[in-house]
Amino acid sequence: MQTIQLTRGVPADESYPLELVRECAAAVMQDPKLSLEAMRYGTGYGFNPLRELLAAQNGVTADQVLIGNGSLSFVDLLGLILTPGATVLVESPTYDRTITLLKRHGVNIVAVPLEPDGVHLEAFTKAVQTYKPTLAYLIADFQNPSGATMSLEKRQAVLALAETHNFMILEDAPYRPLRFRGTSIPSLFELNPAKVMQMSSYTKQISPGVRVGTLVGDKTWLAKFAKAANDTYISGAFLGQATVFEFLKRGHLEPQLARLRALYAPRLERMAAALRTNGLTDFLEPDGGFFLSVNLPSGSSIADILGKAANASLALTDGRGFFVNPADGNQFLRLPFCALSFEEIDEGMKRLAGLLA
Amino acid sequence: MQTIQLTRGVPADESYPLELVRECAAAVMQDPKLSLEAMRYGTGYGFNPLRELLAAQNGVTADQVLIGNGSLSFVDLLGLILTPGATVLVESPTYDRTITLLKRHGVNIVAVPLEPDGVHLEAFTKAVQTYKPTLAYLIADFQNPSGATMSLEKRQAVLALAETHNFMILEDAPYRPLRFRGTSIPSLFELNPAKVMQMSSYTKQISPGVRVGTLVGDKTWLAKFAKAANDTYISGAFLGQATVFEFLKRGHLEPQLARLRALYAPRLERMAAALRTNGLTDFLEPDGGFFLSVNLPSGSSIADILGKAANASLALTDGRGFFVNPADGNQFLRLPFCALSFEEIDEGMKRLAGLLA
Repeated sequence: MQTIQLTRGVPADESYPLELVRECAAAVMQDPKLSLEAMRYGTGYGFNPLRELLAAQNGVTADQVLIGNGSLSFVDLLGLILTPGATVLVESPTYDRTITLLKRHGVNIVAVPLEPDGVHLEAFTKAVQTYKPTLAYLIADFQNPSGATMSLEKRQAVLALAETHNFMILEDAPYRPLRFRGTSIPSLFELNPAKVMQMSSYTKQISPGVRVGTLVGDKTWLAKFAKAANDTYISGAFLGQATVFEFLKRGHLEPQLARLRALYAPRLERMAAALRTNGLTDFLEPDGGFFLSVNLPSGSSIADILGKAANASLALTDGRGFFVNPADGNQFLRLPFCALSFEEIDEGMKRLAGLLA
Repeated sequence: MQTIQLTRGVPADESYPLELVRECAAAVMQDPKLSLEAMRYGTGYGFNPLRELLAAQNGVTADQVLIGNGSLSFVDLLGLILTPGATVLVESPTYDRTITLLKRHGVNIVAVPLEPDGVHLEAFTKAVQTYKPTLAYLIADFQNPSGATMSLEKRQAVLALAETHNFMILEDAPYRPLRFRGTSIPSLFELNPAKVMQMSSYTKQISPGVRVGTLVGDKTWLAKFAKAANDTYISGAFLGQATVFEFLKRGHLEPQLARLRALYAPRLERMAAALRTNGLTDFLEPDGGFFLSVNLPSGSSIADILGKAANASLALTDGRGFFVNPADGNQFLRLPFCALSFEEIDEGMKRLAGLLA
């Protein structure tokens, strides 16, 4: 029996714009000026033509844009530039790799419970008052791992707290352009560009292989990120960054995003339907992104089903990894849907229900 | 007056094989299997086809090969996997960015004086006995920043110490294929693959923009590097790694290295001649690589000439950065030569002599 992968949030193989990436990489290397710039050393800020393009798109200056080797490494760089022992607020659950990296740097991580419409405001307010954070790391749209999207009211409330209590927000927004339904809510960055740094990535939008993440925001903070990046790897993977630049310049991103939404939205619907068909009704169905999350029925635990999953040819992620206090995730299961066929979704949800029966 | 850059070791613009990189990137993206693998997520070990190719070339298994985002980041990963407070021996002087990264991780760095034929053996032996290092970081060929190459006898002696005192060696060998004269000496890795991990990079051999570094050696150590890499950036810049794979597979590397030697050797000779013409005779002339180093005349100091360099339209690197104890570098000047024209070399050495007069 073929194992069904319900672990990582990987794009679907059929989503990669292979031909366009080929054209763009070749065009970069054929352009006398661009090719030289793509081959040379640069700074920790990344490939300048892409920075300038994104600065224009975001209505900021180029010194407010940094391009890196994927967006995760920004969290590593953040750990380096924070004062030792600084406090960072995160949602609970949050992206497991962010927890790993912040822990590595000895950051004091304070987790605030997440509701389907964003952080629990009272708990967030109390955490701000108690721990005086330097920064809050928030995934406002189609959150990884829960699928939750923060309401406009909560965004405004969180930003008001950031103003009053003088902390920064690092908004992680890789899924934001992948809204399948409903109306887009202004990003935290759009609502308050002075207090928010927004990171995103072309991993989910073009491919992991181009390895291009972006960080847009306050230039004083970005100068620190750029210094830490330069100390760590001198300059980034410019061949990929230049290829993304060309991809954007040629107007390929919007059609690519439309293709992704058309490909992924039915898979999410299919997964939600398959869960219901199999009697699993306590889940958070997102309006976009890569993940849906299930609250396991009382009496079952993630530890139990992980032990039985391999026998059922199901690969699952341990939900406890998304919680600063792992025990809080005993009944939490994240389900990625983008890279699965309808058949895999139907069969996977059946097997999952079997484990829980 | 145009400033002459005598700071960083950058390749010459005319060295980049733009057309071949274009062909290779396009070929990767046209290959159904390779293109998918280049677009997908991978592991911290890097792009598998390139790992397998390098494993075959080095007579090792694929689990002894790791590909990263340039080679410098291996030093960052090393800092993560060492026990806090572990001791690393380095040459004095050594690569300044290695010092910065090891310091970042709280590594105890012990610097051993370097002679024109490699580390001072007596001092190295004493340091091994006194500090019980976990690892020694050594640049055996055309060392950055000095230009020194370690003799075979010293390589053997250092390896004997590694066996007796049970420490590992991290051999940084990016310049090794760029020998302009004399006979190649077996690398530390070739002499003892069990005690040596060899890192190298295609930055100096193809271009910084592909951002591909390699690490070959003990599989237990490499598994730790791969875990730290995956925790930090998930997987590397596969578009660049796949392009390098294709470049190697098509047999482009050896002709490219021959072109580089033909381009750079005369520049080194020209710089040595220009130094002598201008009365500067106390320098170490390497047999290859990117750097020549000058001992400044007594009575002058790097601080003095740095203060005057800008006025003379000369960009210099502070030699003290290459020393764990900066004061040891008061009279040390590193000179890169690869990216300079004969005219820039002649004029640059004249200006330098003027500063010292």
